[in-house]
Amino acid sequence: MEHKMDIPGLQSFLIEAFPQVAGEIAVTELAADQLTVRLKVQDKHLRPGGTVSGPTMFMLADVAVYLAILSRIGPVALAVTTNCSIDFMRKPVADADLICTARLLKCGRVLAVGDVLIHSAGQAAPVARASLTYSIPPK
Amino acid sequence: MEHKMDIPGLQSFLIEAFPQVAGEIAVTELAADQLTVRLKVQDKHLRPGGTVSGPTMFMLADVAVYLAILSRIGPVALAVTTNCSIDFMRKPVADADLICTARLLKCGRVLAVGDVLIHSAGQAAPVARASLTYSIPPK
Amino acid sequence: MEHKMDIPGLQSFLIEAFPQVAGEIAVTELAADQLTVRLKVQDKHLRPGGTVSGPTMFMLADVAVYLAILSRIGPVALAVTTNCSIDFMRKPVADADLICTARLLKCGRVLAVGDVLIHSAGQAAPVARASLTYSIPPK
Amino acid sequence: MEHKMDIPGLQSFLIEAFPQVAGEIAVTELAADQLTVRLKVQDKHLRPGGTVSGPTMFMLADVAVYLAILSRIGPVALAVTTNCSIDFMRKPVADADLICTARLLKCGRVLAVGDVLIHSAGQAAPVARASLTYSIPPK
Repeated sequence: MEHKMDIPGLQSFLIEAFPQVAGEIAVTELAADQLTVRLKVQDKHLRPGGTVSGPTMFMLADVAVYLAILSRIGPVALAVTTNCSIDFMRKPVADADLICTARLLKCGRVLAVGDVLIHSAGQAAPVARASLTYSIPPK
Repeated sequence: MEHKMDIPGLQSFLIEAFPQVAGEIAVTELAADQLTVRLKVQDKHLRPGGTVSGPTMFMLADVAVYLAILSRIGPVALAVTTNCSIDFMRKPVADADLICTARLLKCGRVLAVGDVLIHSAGQAAPVARASLTYSIPPK
Repeated sequence: MEHKMDIPGLQSFLIEAFPQVAGEIAVTELAADQLTVRLKVQDKHLRPGGTVSGPTMFMLADVAVYLAILSRIGPVALAVTTNCSIDFMRKPVADADLICTARLLKCGRVLAVGDVLIHSAGQAAPVARASLTYSIPPK
Repeated sequence: MEHKMDIPGLQSFLIEAFPQVAGEIAVTELAADQLTVRLKVQDKHLRPGGTVSGPTMFMLADVAVYLAILSRIGPVALAVTTNCSIDFMRKPVADADLICTARLLKCGRVLAVGDVLIHSAGQAAPVARASLTYSIPPK
């Protein structure tokens, strides 16, 4: 299973398709069936109290699995998120970036499924896990 | 089962606890076990193409169930979202507000569970559904 | 939106397609976008302690939404469950049947989504909620 | 993080607490934060057509994470499943056992979270994934 997009290609795609988050998210690793992104945490991602908000972690999980799918099928397809199940397990560390590692578990003709673990940079215990499903449009 | 907070109380709480979204979200209805909020859709909520983004719908569902819980247990408790499962079913209508109706299904000593339907204003078919769990801290 | 199958038709389908559960489950109500089934609770559904097991409630939710989809699209299609999110909220009452009410939230060309509430017969508070997605095969 | 129960202890617990499934499920591996069980697939687990049923896979995921929690906290606590999100991704191979590998992602004072991958024995691509949450009763 080869990749159809590499890290620079994914990063360029992000700038075009998601300009509002492209400056915050860097693809740091791309391996077979696995992709890692890093969120440069900024004030707008934080809740009062200083931890990263739930919607921000949802967005991060969504972008990570989406890019993992695109790395496999290429930038032509317009995948749509149809389901996400997310568990918030620990409070993220204040002032730490978030590292999100996605596994692509299925990349079918109609549906793709992936899951992620999110960690505060430098911490062993994950702050969140999520699984997401995408509908792949017919060619 | 009486309410411990009414609509003005919930709205004031929102301004204090979630200043970043308080101006966008209005509590429009509060009934037994049910609460409705309206999101005034703005540019920052949109994806390229003009539909409301997934993280925005996640945030809306989270706020709606959170307020439904607070209406029951009062503003003292600091409930934390532990799980969300969300299904994106249809593309929201461009230029329409989102209406989110939450049902409180369980409000226990330790866990609370609610679900929501989200509609584009004026449309009969829901754009998303979600269910959320919150951990209630001991008093 | 008319139904393509009525209650006797759904019940006959159940006997053919799911002979192992057909004797236990009765379709008791079929309305627009809503279908109710009743599980005659038997020893094999119980955990030690006398409450209905999780897999039994999962099965009941799955059958209820599946039948709600078939009532709309007819018995020809072979829908496959792709996702289920289920919350177990209260212990079912021992020696009470389970009532499961399904709502069909989306019935698209490729995906169908429904959710359920499960009650112990005669109780107001739900014991479980679930949402399920089905993949509809191309005709 | 040491284990409070080893494989023979978990197997004995299974016989006592879940006699109805104990003969079908073998704990085959126990490592730090990970536990593997094998389901000896029998006729009663099959749907018409010969593949393993959804409720059976749900049960397998539930038992695997439950045992992973008990291996950490010991047999005294009575954990209760509160949420499960499961994705059915591929049809299991007929006549093959199922291998279910659970990761314990959080084992807190009040909540524990784990996830699983389920494979047909001998196959590289997973048939299902699931994440589960358990409520841990106060001591």
